[in-house]
Amino acid sequence: MTARTIFGTLTRRTLAAATLALAAAPAAEAQAVRDPLPSWRDGPNKRAIFTLIRRTVRLGTPDHVPPEQRVAVFDNDGTLWVEQPLYTQFIFAIDRLREMAQRDPALAAHPLFKAAIDGDMRTVMAGGERGLAEIVAVTHSGMSQDAFIGIVTQWLATARHPRFNRPFTQLIYQPMLEVMRLLRREGFAVWIVTGGGQEFVRAFSGPTYGVGIDRVVGSVGKTEFRTLPDGKTELFRLPSIEAVDDGPGKPVGIGRFIGRRPIIAFGNSDGDVEMLQYTTTGAGQRLGLFVHHDDAEREYAYDRETHIGKLDRGLTLAPTAGWRLISMKNDWLRIFPSG
Amino acid sequence: MTARTIFGTLTRRTLAAATLALAAAPAAEAQAVRDPLPSWRDGPNKRAIFTLIRRTVRLGTPDHVPPEQRVAVFDNDGTLWVEQPLYTQFIFAIDRLREMAQRDPALAAHPLFKAAIDGDMRTVMAGGERGLAEIVAVTHSGMSQDAFIGIVTQWLATARHPRFNRPFTQLIYQPMLEVMRLLRREGFAVWIVTGGGQEFVRAFSGPTYGVGIDRVVGSVGKTEFRTLPDGKTELFRLPSIEAVDDGPGKPVGIGRFIGRRPIIAFGNSDGDVEMLQYTTTGAGQRLGLFVHHDDAEREYAYDRETHIGKLDRGLTLAPTAGWRLISMKNDWLRIFPSG
Repeated sequence: MTARTIFGTLTRRTLAAATLALAAAPAAEAQAVRDPLPSWRDGPNKRAIFTLIRRTVRLGTPDHVPPEQRVAVFDNDGTLWVEQPLYTQFIFAIDRLREMAQRDPALAAHPLFKAAIDGDMRTVMAGGERGLAEIVAVTHSGMSQDAFIGIVTQWLATARHPRFNRPFTQLIYQPMLEVMRLLRREGFAVWIVTGGGQEFVRAFSGPTYGVGIDRVVGSVGKTEFRTLPDGKTELFRLPSIEAVDDGPGKPVGIGRFIGRRPIIAFGNSDGDVEMLQYTTTGAGQRLGLFVHHDDAEREYAYDRETHIGKLDRGLTLAPTAGWRLISMKNDWLRIFPSG
Repeated sequence: MTARTIFGTLTRRTLAAATLALAAAPAAEAQAVRDPLPSWRDGPNKRAIFTLIRRTVRLGTPDHVPPEQRVAVFDNDGTLWVEQPLYTQFIFAIDRLREMAQRDPALAAHPLFKAAIDGDMRTVMAGGERGLAEIVAVTHSGMSQDAFIGIVTQWLATARHPRFNRPFTQLIYQPMLEVMRLLRREGFAVWIVTGGGQEFVRAFSGPTYGVGIDRVVGSVGKTEFRTLPDGKTELFRLPSIEAVDDGPGKPVGIGRFIGRRPIIAFGNSDGDVEMLQYTTTGAGQRLGLFVHHDDAEREYAYDRETHIGKLDRGLTLAPTAGWRLISMKNDWLRIFPSG
């Protein structure tokens, strides 16, 4: 054990701050040290995050994890950003369908597409996952990967959330930004493992979360390598699904992209259960956390019963599995970044 | 343009060295500066690598590529290590089949397996790719990912190449190690994009090449997330194929894992043609290179005609596409690392 190593030093500094903050030091003192998670209320959840980091990062203990094995995984929808009243990617898909229908009115002849274009969400949702998948297929394929990312980027620059009237990339959770920053500072590789489309999330993960596009694991459609008449080449998006990164697909995706069992995992719905199971059943120190949306005033309140993002199995399994429920209402002093 | 930035400084230093070395400075002077590619003979290929790096790394020029977009891709078999007389992974598969047959003699009843166990490679190769795939399936599945990596690691620690009588992980190309090191120093992300098994290559990529397991893209079998009776979890390897990372599968894999078009690509066979096409048809400065195995004395000599690693389409397309052929015999002063 030496205090001179990079991680030891970082850890000592970070945790001195954290310990002081948790000890409810007088205001002046608390301001004097820098709490790395200022948007988290002091309490068992915040403490659990600090403890996991301290135990795995500190040298010379049996729980020490070498830097290359420090992997943190975050779900996206509902864990890093707002997923109500509908997954942002579906809002994008419907907007794009409307735009496509202006150029190709035949699209509106399809009853499901017509309902989506007319904003009749009851009919769209009645179509279930298959209906939504059909809307995604027609709006997310038929162009190159580069063109698709351009379309998403342009949409994100102008679209606004119906309730908060802010760009979707501003409706991200400030407390999670702080956790990601802290983990990175402590040598963790921070990955997003999303049931959403990999390229959709890649379009904003860098500037929004500081997560590079090669650290985004998500659901993907098939792509085809094409040589164009002018000799240029592209990856062309086909309308069929290659992999669904949800439920048991999440640990499979983690194995394929990351190749290591995570040390810490954040989710918010039943689609994250297997990712948390895979994480927390590993040897040594591990931590699984669920964001519980219980704050109707500042965000939304939902869990077992909702048209998206169900947290039913997760709530049932959490006590036995030792997963921590993050109460948005009580644990988070602040929800969104300012500005 | 400022000489104070990290990359500018690195570049100036590296290229001062390279330029001096290329100018065939007197021995004393050449020793005084450090050539980052000492195992490469001075000539157009070495110069092309330096030029690509200088143009893309230097700030303030139209060819400048920001660090996060600097992607370099390397094929593995025949590009980073020896692939003759047979892909190392097949030698592993056959060794493992022999071991499995000792525990389960019924395996030897299968004519193809019997031929492999008896070392009758003529019969095995007559079975073509399907036969080899069958041997890979039976030897590479039925265990967890962690167990498989353990099996490969153990094999690599003891197995020896039939001609060179050295561990396979020592039969890697010293000139390529130097290129990978130089690229990393210049801010490139160095990836392996292999037709071989992703987990097989991950078992040695870190210590052997300095390439982390999350930077290995390869062919993969299906895996299943399983919960064991004791509550632990694993990724279990199934005997069916999920993705073949060869030919057009290479740019598809690059899109999925890396998400960016590479700046520089190294290959050695027709399975790398599409990867080089995808790389070199991008805008701006790009470079594609093929290792040409023309050194029967120090390694092997083969190209258009061979049971593995054909370089037929590649040799035909190279002149028009501007891909550079690396002559192992003439370009490489040294083949393997010492020791």
